[in-house]
Amino acid sequence: MSALTKPADHFPSSDDAKPVLYSSCMSSCSWRVRIALGLKGIPYDIKTDCKSSEYKEVNPMQQVPALCIDGHTLCDSVAIMQYLDETRPQHPLLPQDPYKRAKVLQIVHIICSGIQPLQNTCVLARVGEEESLEWAQHWISRGFDALEKVLSESSGKFCMGDEISMADCCLVPQVFNARRYQINLDLYPTIQRLDHGLGTNTTIRACHPYNQPDYLQK
Amino acid sequence: MSALTKPADHFPSSDDAKPVLYSSCMSSCSWRVRIALGLKGIPYDIKTDCKSSEYKEVNPMQQVPALCIDGHTLCDSVAIMQYLDETRPQHPLLPQDPYKRAKVLQIVHIICSGIQPLQNTCVLARVGEEESLEWAQHWISRGFDALEKVLSESSGKFCMGDEISMADCCLVPQVFNARRYQINLDLYPTIQRLDHGLGTNTTIRACHPYNQPDYLQK
Repeated sequence: MSALTKPADHFPSSDDAKPVLYSSCMSSCSWRVRIALGLKGIPYDIKTDCKSSEYKEVNPMQQVPALCIDGHTLCDSVAIMQYLDETRPQHPLLPQDPYKRAKVLQIVHIICSGIQPLQNTCVLARVGEEESLEWAQHWISRGFDALEKVLSESSGKFCMGDEISMADCCLVPQVFNARRYQINLDLYPTIQRLDHGLGTNTTIRACHPYNQPDYLQK
Repeated sequence: MSALTKPADHFPSSDDAKPVLYSSCMSSCSWRVRIALGLKGIPYDIKTDCKSSEYKEVNPMQQVPALCIDGHTLCDSVAIMQYLDETRPQHPLLPQDPYKRAKVLQIVHIICSGIQPLQNTCVLARVGEEESLEWAQHWISRGFDALEKVLSESSGKFCMGDEISMADCCLVPQVFNARRYQINLDLYPTIQRLDHGLGTNTTIRACHPYNQPDYLQK
């Protein structure tokens, strides 16, 4: 029996088989998935004890997020969002048109490959306290220069025209991090406009780190 | 007329409307797309003058790859591979089953977000010559530790069972880079086994940097 078909014996029990999201309030990648679940109207339980020995059974890499759903444990925020979109078509997070899908994924990957990996906490720890702010600012600015150009052509009310998408799920946490590292957002009028609009959405606001059960523990 | 529907006036002309790939021989991201095009049996023209003013019109970010196809210009290797798979279903690069698709995308993102962005040349240049080897080794090893665990459960002949996928398109260039930065691949028996198998595929071998038209120019 291969690992892909064996029963997930560490699968958390839930009375109504609700998905369980392992999430950390300040993790951008967890935040993306919280927004995707929220926009799709999928109820879920949240677990934040991601340093526990139980979590090591869920995800041997001990990274968040992980989503236990449909008898599977999924890791990686972009893979999870695509899975949700393929299995729960309500409130789609990717356009139907292949070219527009590719544009959404381009925006997603500018953020998820081009920016976030270079400014996450473990990279900044290795860069060292003295240089970490300048390092984060350099890579966020470089990414935002490109993102602003792309979004100035693609966006309407949202990153891709007037339909909300995976790109918006990724933009919100990244702009939060840009503010955290003191990026002047006036240089990025399209990014700033989109973020302001997304900030008025009550579903998205509910996913903010400050509204997470583990926030007060910090 | 929005930017998404306007005619691509910089679209390169090609007598038989063959796709045009802007590629650099040593770029991992270009290499992934060369493999995807090759595996799908899609003929394409290649352009390697990616520093030219012409290319600035194709991709204002001046990054490779870009693929001009179906009247559109697509950027970002993962977005391009998914577009190819959606519009050219022959020799699929993603499984039909949503869970298996999510596993493939998890592997793709471990490489494309978790490893490659931290060891690409512009990041290493900023780290500085003295520390760049240790830096690259640290992040590749960290990523390969995770990748080895995931692949030891998911792989058969290829990264995901016995069907070749986008994950394999990403693995080949990343293992090349691991060798370049002197990673001891004996620590990663599954990765090494998969890479050896993929190296016997003549289509994949044709995509190697050493077989590219711009290799001799370096």
